[in-house]
Amino acid sequence: MRDFLPADVRRRRFVIQTIASTYERYGFEPLETPAVENIETLLGKYGEEGNQLVFRILKRGAELQRALEKPAAVDAGAGESRIEFADLALRYDLTVPLARVVAEHRTLPKFFKRYQIQPVWRADRPARGRFREFYQCDVDVLGSTSPVVEAELCAAAADALLALGFRTFTIRVNHRQLLTALLDVAGVTADKHTDALIALDKLGKITPDEVVADMEARGIARAAADASIGLFLTDFLVAGVPAPTNAEVFAALRTRIGDHAVGQAALDNLAAIERLAAATPAGGRLQLDPSLARGLSYYTGAIMEIAVPDLAGSLGGGGRYDNLVGMFRSEQVPACGFSLGLERILVVMGERGMFAADLDTAAADVMVLQWSEATQADALALAGELRVSVDGSAPPRVVLYPEVDKPGKQFKYAESIGVRVAVLVGEDEATAGTVNLKDLKNRVQVTVPRAEAPAEIRRLLAASK
Amino acid sequence: MRDFLPADVRRRRFVIQTIASTYERYGFEPLETPAVENIETLLGKYGEEGNQLVFRILKRGAELQRALEKPAAVDAGAGESRIEFADLALRYDLTVPLARVVAEHRTLPKFFKRYQIQPVWRADRPARGRFREFYQCDVDVLGSTSPVVEAELCAAAADALLALGFRTFTIRVNHRQLLTALLDVAGVTADKHTDALIALDKLGKITPDEVVADMEARGIARAAADASIGLFLTDFLVAGVPAPTNAEVFAALRTRIGDHAVGQAALDNLAAIERLAAATPAGGRLQLDPSLARGLSYYTGAIMEIAVPDLAGSLGGGGRYDNLVGMFRSEQVPACGFSLGLERILVVMGERGMFAADLDTAAADVMVLQWSEATQADALALAGELRVSVDGSAPPRVVLYPEVDKPGKQFKYAESIGVRVAVLVGEDEATAGTVNLKDLKNRVQVTVPRAEAPAEIRRLLAASK
Repeated sequence: MRDFLPADVRRRRFVIQTIASTYERYGFEPLETPAVENIETLLGKYGEEGNQLVFRILKRGAELQRALEKPAAVDAGAGESRIEFADLALRYDLTVPLARVVAEHRTLPKFFKRYQIQPVWRADRPARGRFREFYQCDVDVLGSTSPVVEAELCAAAADALLALGFRTFTIRVNHRQLLTALLDVAGVTADKHTDALIALDKLGKITPDEVVADMEARGIARAAADASIGLFLTDFLVAGVPAPTNAEVFAALRTRIGDHAVGQAALDNLAAIERLAAATPAGGRLQLDPSLARGLSYYTGAIMEIAVPDLAGSLGGGGRYDNLVGMFRSEQVPACGFSLGLERILVVMGERGMFAADLDTAAADVMVLQWSEATQADALALAGELRVSVDGSAPPRVVLYPEVDKPGKQFKYAESIGVRVAVLVGEDEATAGTVNLKDLKNRVQVTVPRAEAPAEIRRLLAASK
Repeated sequence: MRDFLPADVRRRRFVIQTIASTYERYGFEPLETPAVENIETLLGKYGEEGNQLVFRILKRGAELQRALEKPAAVDAGAGESRIEFADLALRYDLTVPLARVVAEHRTLPKFFKRYQIQPVWRADRPARGRFREFYQCDVDVLGSTSPVVEAELCAAAADALLALGFRTFTIRVNHRQLLTALLDVAGVTADKHTDALIALDKLGKITPDEVVADMEARGIARAAADASIGLFLTDFLVAGVPAPTNAEVFAALRTRIGDHAVGQAALDNLAAIERLAAATPAGGRLQLDPSLARGLSYYTGAIMEIAVPDLAGSLGGGGRYDNLVGMFRSEQVPACGFSLGLERILVVMGERGMFAADLDTAAADVMVLQWSEATQADALALAGELRVSVDGSAPPRVVLYPEVDKPGKQFKYAESIGVRVAVLVGEDEATAGTVNLKDLKNRVQVTVPRAEAPAEIRRLLAASK
């Protein structure tokens, strides 16, 4: 977990605000949920691996004492028994908390469109661009099964990336029911589908042969494993075509799936999404990729993931999860969402130099120097007088040197923190009712009546830009 | 812990942004730290009560197993032994993480002025305005012992409250060394100072007699307890004056403290702070109150707390803590800070009706309706075309009804979520290349060429304000 120093925070805020304002233009509303959820809310929603990565909070007081006194809890060893010691947990993503909110708050609009940009925590081994605390930028629509929802989510996420300056990115799409159909066609038995998907999710990271070996290790027949690879990888699926078009992949899948009704319906759904997204910012960016699996167990329909050429992982992803709200209340509420990963966006934007130079701003524009103990109160008052807007402009950021010190040392400090105008009221200035302004960049000094200082500072700041 | 629905988030953001922009005008820079700290960083910094309120995160995997297998850890019962099961903890405030940051990052400016607005967590019993997750808005200066620092912090905090619309508030000030001096003068032995302050901190919540009883229960002699009350409460200290001025309180304290050099130096410091703050937004708001104790154990100098007439607790508080950074590295770095409580500010502003009406905005300005399956893709495209700025104005927030449905039902939904302009392209409009716009407030309908829709929508939105 990391500290974000001022320059980091400015970049993070720029990205967050750009994404948030894009989502607001689409009519998504902000939601915030607590960092801490009841542990039962989180466990059992993310698959086995996810469960292990949930940070658990120790019970307190008498409740902890009771848990400790149960010998079984201690003796049981690893795994689920440890829940005995924890009653709360840090949120693992923003989707499960959203489902809980929608289940609990009955006054929300029928089609609840919300965005949420907050940190999540996973007890993962840290790696490049992977942290134990990281921000997700989520956008979700609840209440509709229409493919318009998927298309609009792809449009909004694409628009957010475009607003940040991204130009070349692809939205890989697939469908959970299509995955089921392909596994059925490949001859993987239903009880092995989860295992097969865990193995197939590694395609691209390890070789197809290694994936086949992994599938066999998980008890899947060799023939079925081989057949899966032939269906999931477009290199084999559309043999002899190096970069097949969506239409070619669709056609190949239609044929291979044959009369598998669920699989054909999934392809219909994906075709509708592609057609609906065509005239949006996501148009031309969707790429049908049958090998896309997505780890989380709650997805039920279309799944998507955003890829850029210079990043191994994805910038974000999402999908439809029509059964999650129903885990928290009796009725189901259909839902679909998209999550952008703030940290990865920052990594790519930083490496590519996509941030505007003026984001790396100094702490302040102006520094008021201290002349003597006797004038300290006046220096404080002067700093306040300078923090005013001239002609509707944003007021300058004015810092006060906190101690009486040699002027040379104070000027040096002002330069070291990037201040552009230094302000001094010495004895002469105090007597004359003037202030001395020093443009630290252009090395110009002027003395002006105190009342004119704000306007003169504005001129100097504009000139030293 | 609470969910913040869209209307809540808008109010919270308004307050946060107002405070942040005020602090930035003073040259404070943003800092963010992780929610989770190593448990050793937090324990032992907040006093005994604080220690108990730190949320602890369970160790994971083999480390947890090892901790569980130590029988002593389980048998030891309550209190510190439980640390054995936890290696991390949720931050309890923003001050200790700041001290850790300053100790770790050596490249910060000599006078590091930072603000930080983030949640903190305390395993407290929830009550009105008190939550287990709450936001603090902290502003601190590191690197100087000058009273200019305290004065500027009071000025900045006062300016932030003024920007939010607060007019009547008081900044109560006191000094840890003055507290020490008063306890010495009252005859409380040094080993009982902490106990005495815990008891005296309750003045105002319980009666003076109850405080005296509490002090006796903590092993403080009755005479010393009585004398303490006579010194701490200005009613007794400046007897016969119902609302004594700062000058009267200062004079009484000077006399009572006599030749207690540390106490007189504390009074000098408070006098300097009052004088320096006079010509700032904090001017006339400082109130010397010897009964102000502040719970946290890390304070070393001036302490302050902001009070408003209609809230029992405080809106915020702070003080000087010159020894805290030294707990994380060999050299000391002097420091002083102020923390505003977001939740309490929100409670008071809400109760007083201080929020502007336009904060309670609808989710969207415009809704595009769906006519038929065949026109769905065009409706998506149209929504995108309408999300444009006309004449440099902010683009409207445009929501798309996600499904094909009866127009009457769609119009009704638009009204229910507060949308002001509904947009429909039916068969006639599609043929003619026009769009139908309905002002849902003024009940006006117009049909305009599609290219003119953005400008016409802007006119309708302005008219329905």
